[in-house]
Amino acid sequence: MVPQRLEKLRGLMAQRGIDAYIIPTSDFHESEYVGDYFKARKYMSGFTGSAGTMVVTAKEACLWTDGRYFIQAANQLKGTTIILMKMGEEGTPAIEDYLYDVIPSGGKLGFDGRVITAAMGHALAKRLADKKVALSTSEDLVGMIWEDRPSLSAQPAFLLDEKYAGKSSSQKLAELREKMKDNGCTIHVITTLDDIAWLFNIRGNDVEYNPVVLSYAVIGMEQAHLFANPVCLNDEIREKLSADGVKIHDYDEMISFVKGLSADEAVLLDPQKVNYAIDSSIQGKKVEKANPTQLAKAIKNPVELENIRNAHIKDGVAFTKFMYWLKTNVGKIPMTEISAADYLLACRAEQEGFIEPSFDTISAYKANAAMMHYSATKESDAVLQAEGMLLVDSGGQYYEGTTDITRTVVLGPITDEQKLHFTTVLRSNLNLANARFLHGCVGMNLDILARGPIWDLGLDYKCGTGHGIGYLLNVHEAPNGFRWKIVAERRDSAILEEGMVTTDEPGIYIEGSHGIRIENELICRKGVKNSDGQFMYFEPVTYAPIDLDGVDPQYMTEKERQALNDYHAMVYGKLFPYLTDGEREWLKEYTRAI
Amino acid sequence: MVPQRLEKLRGLMAQRGIDAYIIPTSDFHESEYVGDYFKARKYMSGFTGSAGTMVVTAKEACLWTDGRYFIQAANQLKGTTIILMKMGEEGTPAIEDYLYDVIPSGGKLGFDGRVITAAMGHALAKRLADKKVALSTSEDLVGMIWEDRPSLSAQPAFLLDEKYAGKSSSQKLAELREKMKDNGCTIHVITTLDDIAWLFNIRGNDVEYNPVVLSYAVIGMEQAHLFANPVCLNDEIREKLSADGVKIHDYDEMISFVKGLSADEAVLLDPQKVNYAIDSSIQGKKVEKANPTQLAKAIKNPVELENIRNAHIKDGVAFTKFMYWLKTNVGKIPMTEISAADYLLACRAEQEGFIEPSFDTISAYKANAAMMHYSATKESDAVLQAEGMLLVDSGGQYYEGTTDITRTVVLGPITDEQKLHFTTVLRSNLNLANARFLHGCVGMNLDILARGPIWDLGLDYKCGTGHGIGYLLNVHEAPNGFRWKIVAERRDSAILEEGMVTTDEPGIYIEGSHGIRIENELICRKGVKNSDGQFMYFEPVTYAPIDLDGVDPQYMTEKERQALNDYHAMVYGKLFPYLTDGEREWLKEYTRAI
Repeated sequence: MVPQRLEKLRGLMAQRGIDAYIIPTSDFHESEYVGDYFKARKYMSGFTGSAGTMVVTAKEACLWTDGRYFIQAANQLKGTTIILMKMGEEGTPAIEDYLYDVIPSGGKLGFDGRVITAAMGHALAKRLADKKVALSTSEDLVGMIWEDRPSLSAQPAFLLDEKYAGKSSSQKLAELREKMKDNGCTIHVITTLDDIAWLFNIRGNDVEYNPVVLSYAVIGMEQAHLFANPVCLNDEIREKLSADGVKIHDYDEMISFVKGLSADEAVLLDPQKVNYAIDSSIQGKKVEKANPTQLAKAIKNPVELENIRNAHIKDGVAFTKFMYWLKTNVGKIPMTEISAADYLLACRAEQEGFIEPSFDTISAYKANAAMMHYSATKESDAVLQAEGMLLVDSGGQYYEGTTDITRTVVLGPITDEQKLHFTTVLRSNLNLANARFLHGCVGMNLDILARGPIWDLGLDYKCGTGHGIGYLLNVHEAPNGFRWKIVAERRDSAILEEGMVTTDEPGIYIEGSHGIRIENELICRKGVKNSDGQFMYFEPVTYAPIDLDGVDPQYMTEKERQALNDYHAMVYGKLFPYLTDGEREWLKEYTRAI
Repeated sequence: MVPQRLEKLRGLMAQRGIDAYIIPTSDFHESEYVGDYFKARKYMSGFTGSAGTMVVTAKEACLWTDGRYFIQAANQLKGTTIILMKMGEEGTPAIEDYLYDVIPSGGKLGFDGRVITAAMGHALAKRLADKKVALSTSEDLVGMIWEDRPSLSAQPAFLLDEKYAGKSSSQKLAELREKMKDNGCTIHVITTLDDIAWLFNIRGNDVEYNPVVLSYAVIGMEQAHLFANPVCLNDEIREKLSADGVKIHDYDEMISFVKGLSADEAVLLDPQKVNYAIDSSIQGKKVEKANPTQLAKAIKNPVELENIRNAHIKDGVAFTKFMYWLKTNVGKIPMTEISAADYLLACRAEQEGFIEPSFDTISAYKANAAMMHYSATKESDAVLQAEGMLLVDSGGQYYEGTTDITRTVVLGPITDEQKLHFTTVLRSNLNLANARFLHGCVGMNLDILARGPIWDLGLDYKCGTGHGIGYLLNVHEAPNGFRWKIVAERRDSAILEEGMVTTDEPGIYIEGSHGIRIENELICRKGVKNSDGQFMYFEPVTYAPIDLDGVDPQYMTEKERQALNDYHAMVYGKLFPYLTDGEREWLKEYTRAI
């Protein structure tokens, strides 16, 4: 199939004089997860991984992907003629350098301007400028040859009541307009789905795990405009939006609308988020900045924070019931990675206000847990036995917030080294959670508190220590995070502000042996203020036992043991009213002071 | 006197149509300390502090200085008509904003282009561009009215033997030219005195505490040029430089030399270090970067490191003898902050290879130590008694390197709170010194290891945790350092590389009560390398006891006590051969395991 599709694409390219065509893995909104409608790269290559960019020329087709997918991509590309480009390996050219080499002077580069960011589009144009390469960006060539393409998601949206959101949409709009004024702007273009959902207090179901509505927004100083599929918006939403001065347009009208904006407008937009097609359609002066909604959304308001605490009690109850079931039944009844994850989902589904998982659960047994992005498939699904450890990273979407928790559960005998590693990961988690720091710190200041104990063993985990998290929104949310090296495009190194919620999830991963991660969410709070400044601290808001069967207290200081005991006493206090007698007795034992 | 001097300056300004004239506190090289020749701001204002910038207009004269000097400046400016501008206080305009306001459209700003950096000069020009303000930068107006101006320093220079420098000047030049090539440059202009001294393996005595030679350098791909006062250079230096292809010019010929460079040259220079006069004289294309010598100089070579260890043994012997004398004699013989510092200097002076102090010793008793930049004067000189603590921050210039050490010595009874603070500062120091971290870390990653225990008490110290240090050069040397917030102009946030030497000097300062600082130097070393990366660690290279009379072990973890005991055992092992019996017995007691 793939060779025929490539042939058709090359036919369209030839008609248009396009020398190279880029097919990335994106929707029109730079979403982390993309719907089936947007899986053009998968359709054209047969490669099903979540990350990859394809470039097709008359003679060649290449697919760039990262280390997670080298083996899978090599298999899936067999027989397609597509060349695998291993990102990060020596000798692999960057896409822009490859394009520079293969496109002749005066040639033409094509891509659908809606799936490439403005920043990327401009960077490509700059890289190819001295070869006088023209860009052709107005056509979706894959769409022209894609038979039976899935349709765009158009799920019903709903209003998020102010008792959940904590602030009205009209107030959020007023505050946003103040920020626009501060930046000398009269128009603000927002295309990130979570920012739009947050701003208008709406939620939907158009992206898997992310309760957002496929939409664009243009905010003027008096009126605002929401572009969405009309079938998604019920009368209640329409009335509410209309009352807030928001005009509703069809999703497809966005580009023509921004084309119609006066050249006198000063337009605030984020070139790393807004797509090239929209950006190119704007005549006015542009002020390029992150959306002000990004920071406003990250700083949870007091109502949201109180709801989040409640969501976490529910989530903790579900997780504790699951952990009790797991530890008391393993080795006695059949269970696998997938069936355990299903049981956990069922526990969550019993909680009032639970909507859906907040991401694809990682349920990884023994050596599988050493693969940080492992996802059990029917083929890999390991049988759980009364030995070793099961790592479970999961979360839920509730009306009261989004959760993300990892526990590594000891199912039976583990080695001394595994106990050392478990205890070290626990110390790392506690060390960060108990930080006291001056306001002004960013994640990079604090990361070593978690990573240090693991570095002391000569080990490292190859990811950040934590990420921001949305409110009934995306489980990964900028601009806060914990990371020791800045990764510019993640933009997760903001100053830690009161009300931000960030995960704390250090881990140890030993290939072929085991993987351990312990993840809690932390609310950033204001502490003492004195002549030395405003001190900050974290409130852990994940309530679930950390498996004491993995802990060897000899590796912990008195202060660390105290921190664990305090945490466990809090967990018991929050959860016990919602448990059966058996579960409660078990939790008492598993939250005992050590 | 000051009003008459201002009057004369205004006369010269009026003749030239200059509306405002800037008098900063700098030499032609952006040195940290400036010689008497360069103290134009002091001459024109009467203010003797080490930092301040003056702006004179026909009607007004203003002096900007920072919080350290508000009281002193207010006193010294009395009767001068000069207005004190308190930097960092609300309502105080930035200098460039002040200039923008006071200079009329089409007016003229004057300064001596040799004492303002290129970066600052260009920033001023940009700020004033829309008022079409012209710059007059070729005249030193203060020099024209300054009677009895001290002459430029012209102390004899000397060659630093390769047994000290560890690398020949010709090799350093070859490596520098590789870096020039990498940057596409044919010429490199260096004006920072420590870089020049390092590159040519020469030292001198033209700046207090910094053993440098007043000079400029221009490096071509074949030939190099050194601009210095001929009287400073003896025949040995001349022969050596000539053999290395270095041509000697007079110090004053620099500007005309760079004017004569072809416009075809590509010139590497650092606009934050090179002065505006030199920068404006260059016609060629400029590549603006930090001098490659900055990083090369910071990464000490194995010979330098071995010498540094030896210098620190000498320095440790001197400090230990001083500390023994201090602790056994206080309360019995008269001593003051200054006489104690003199005794310490005498101990250092007895060491073979000692040249001079590396900075002005801070000897601060009790509450005086809470002032971080306290310098005892005849008026303030406190009498030391058998109670409280004396903070001594000092260092030496040796042929074998530059030292910088702080110890806080307990002279008698101290309070429980002081013991808690002393022990906390010690824990901070040890915590950073014992870090294990992946290569790639910068100071900002590690700072919290030292600052964290102090933040835990709700306290902070308002300075960095540590700075790079030269080899028989400046005691403050970029680009390495420990700091929790990046201060762009300090440029001390480089990746920590093997061979860099950085101080570790956390502290607690309680106004009106006490100040505690414990400072060791740390050599950055390579540790384990495995699939997770190259791990790094620190080797403490300062050998002197940390006063156990200030330590309360109950505040320390077992690991921290072990780290202190290991450090003290090493100190004893390094120093005991060089001590008298009495000193040795005392040191044994004061380096005992706790």
